[in-house]
Amino acid sequence: MATANHRITLAQRPQGLVGPECFSSDEVEAPVPGPGQILVEVTWLSIDPTIRGWMAMDTYLPAIEIGAEIRSAGLGKVIESNIETHPVGSTVFGTVGWQQYAVLGADAMVIPEGVEPEAALSVFGVTGLTAYFGLLDVGRPVAGETVLVSGAAGATGSIVGQIARLKGCRVVGIAGSDQKCGWLTDHLGFDAAINYKTDDIAAAIKEHCPNGVDVFFDNVGGDILEAAIGNLAMRGRVVMCGAISQYNDETPRPGPKNLTNLIVMRGRIEGFIILDYFDRAGEAIGELATWVMAGEMKYAVDVVDGLDNAPVALDRLFTGANTGKVMVRL
Amino acid sequence: MATANHRITLAQRPQGLVGPECFSSDEVEAPVPGPGQILVEVTWLSIDPTIRGWMAMDTYLPAIEIGAEIRSAGLGKVIESNIETHPVGSTVFGTVGWQQYAVLGADAMVIPEGVEPEAALSVFGVTGLTAYFGLLDVGRPVAGETVLVSGAAGATGSIVGQIARLKGCRVVGIAGSDQKCGWLTDHLGFDAAINYKTDDIAAAIKEHCPNGVDVFFDNVGGDILEAAIGNLAMRGRVVMCGAISQYNDETPRPGPKNLTNLIVMRGRIEGFIILDYFDRAGEAIGELATWVMAGEMKYAVDVVDGLDNAPVALDRLFTGANTGKVMVRL
Repeated sequence: MATANHRITLAQRPQGLVGPECFSSDEVEAPVPGPGQILVEVTWLSIDPTIRGWMAMDTYLPAIEIGAEIRSAGLGKVIESNIETHPVGSTVFGTVGWQQYAVLGADAMVIPEGVEPEAALSVFGVTGLTAYFGLLDVGRPVAGETVLVSGAAGATGSIVGQIARLKGCRVVGIAGSDQKCGWLTDHLGFDAAINYKTDDIAAAIKEHCPNGVDVFFDNVGGDILEAAIGNLAMRGRVVMCGAISQYNDETPRPGPKNLTNLIVMRGRIEGFIILDYFDRAGEAIGELATWVMAGEMKYAVDVVDGLDNAPVALDRLFTGANTGKVMVRL
Repeated sequence: MATANHRITLAQRPQGLVGPECFSSDEVEAPVPGPGQILVEVTWLSIDPTIRGWMAMDTYLPAIEIGAEIRSAGLGKVIESNIETHPVGSTVFGTVGWQQYAVLGADAMVIPEGVEPEAALSVFGVTGLTAYFGLLDVGRPVAGETVLVSGAAGATGSIVGQIARLKGCRVVGIAGSDQKCGWLTDHLGFDAAINYKTDDIAAAIKEHCPNGVDVFFDNVGGDILEAAIGNLAMRGRVVMCGAISQYNDETPRPGPKNLTNLIVMRGRIEGFIILDYFDRAGEAIGELATWVMAGEMKYAVDVVDGLDNAPVALDRLFTGANTGKVMVRL
């Protein structure tokens, strides 16, 4: 008898906030791996803001089809293998989807033994790669410069700030509660933190970045982006990683009013997608692992239990409930 | 008896359109050159959008002081010299201001004999340098790519488009009348031109840049910038040279709603100021001169006569009345 595969599927495309009406669930037959493929039992899901984009429309990947399982990165344990390098029992990282069983190809990455799932999906996963290459390759901070990070208590932002600190920069984070701000300065070594819900953002950036912002790593967009552009240092760089403040807008909001400050300050705004860096993953993971093992880099996770709670986990990103990487444990 | 120096001065800072109330005039004693200085009789003024910025506020240079002559680049004939390399009778380029006589230092550039004032102030002046370094150093187009230029019939835009064509790019210009558009395609060799006053800009960009915009050289800002961002090619670059559509706004207008397209397309917006490239002027002028002498690069000028008409000349930039470089002949 075929194994049943419980899935969370796309019922309708989100307009505004992603609500429960966007999701459905079903049971289908578990997929069967062909030559050059493996069957995995999904063990963990990586919950990322980009999932909302995939649900809504074609972006850098085609939109998820209605009725298909929600596309998602995650970990799985290999239970059938037609790939010599991916033996049964090993743990792999790949696009597993919100379901119990998934078939993956040889591009699934085998996770070395001893690496905890929490680390594999955060600091050593897409999150860590995004932070590493976005900051270092797009933002190109130099020791002594000031790096400002929005969404700083989130999965990516918290790693960005620590990398910047380890590279000798002054680091200022923006987050949504005093508790998160305290965590950034007391536990992650940020030089300062700004609570965007209670502080005057532009004034606070000016205060904490007295020489201007050399690199702004932006996960948020909107007013925070505008405030950062207004405080750019000469030749300041804005790394556009995300714009989570706007993903749920039904109609697009106007952009920053002060873009011409890019002319005065010879500034730059640049977007990137981490897919383009996957072939250089080794570089990043090597340096991140060194820092983690030396105790110089911390990572936080926000674990939600149960496949059926994946929609709730996704919601935590947009309400700002999470500190660190949101993950679902199956 | 001291020589009288007629000047056009700043009466008040502009709010909205630059009107006659912003200007006054006076007669003062002509300045006297000290050691290492020259006295010039001003012969031509270069009329540039940035003058409005200098009148309004501190930007990349301090604002012009109330009561001082309007800051302006231009040409002058040396009539007294304390610099061996700048003999009496030679023509120099420098920040002469809106006045009859100016004292300049050794950074005034001697214009080689045989170079017409119209060329010296346009293709071989700040305009040509802005087009050259903005396009090639900031935009970095590659042969075969598509370059879109706004303000394409203006001084800078018309040279940008021709450089792009000479570098093997497909060139599309945006201008404000069918006559200007015809001039771009029929006389300057643009592949296509869009009339932003009558065409649907976004649709027209899509039509004329079917593979997307690889480089957008923007002199205009506003809706045109938004339309270009929406049509960026993968790794497209926006060169922010100016935002003339917005310089007269009393309150800043919202920015482009679609900045997150920079993420999807791995795009970039970058500002620059030509001051930073003055030490490389020789590079640009060498290549521009080769093109001009070979008849491959044309330049147009929009000449207004008389110092007292300088305010009217400035106004032509903002109403879009000009084709090519606006200059005042004293």
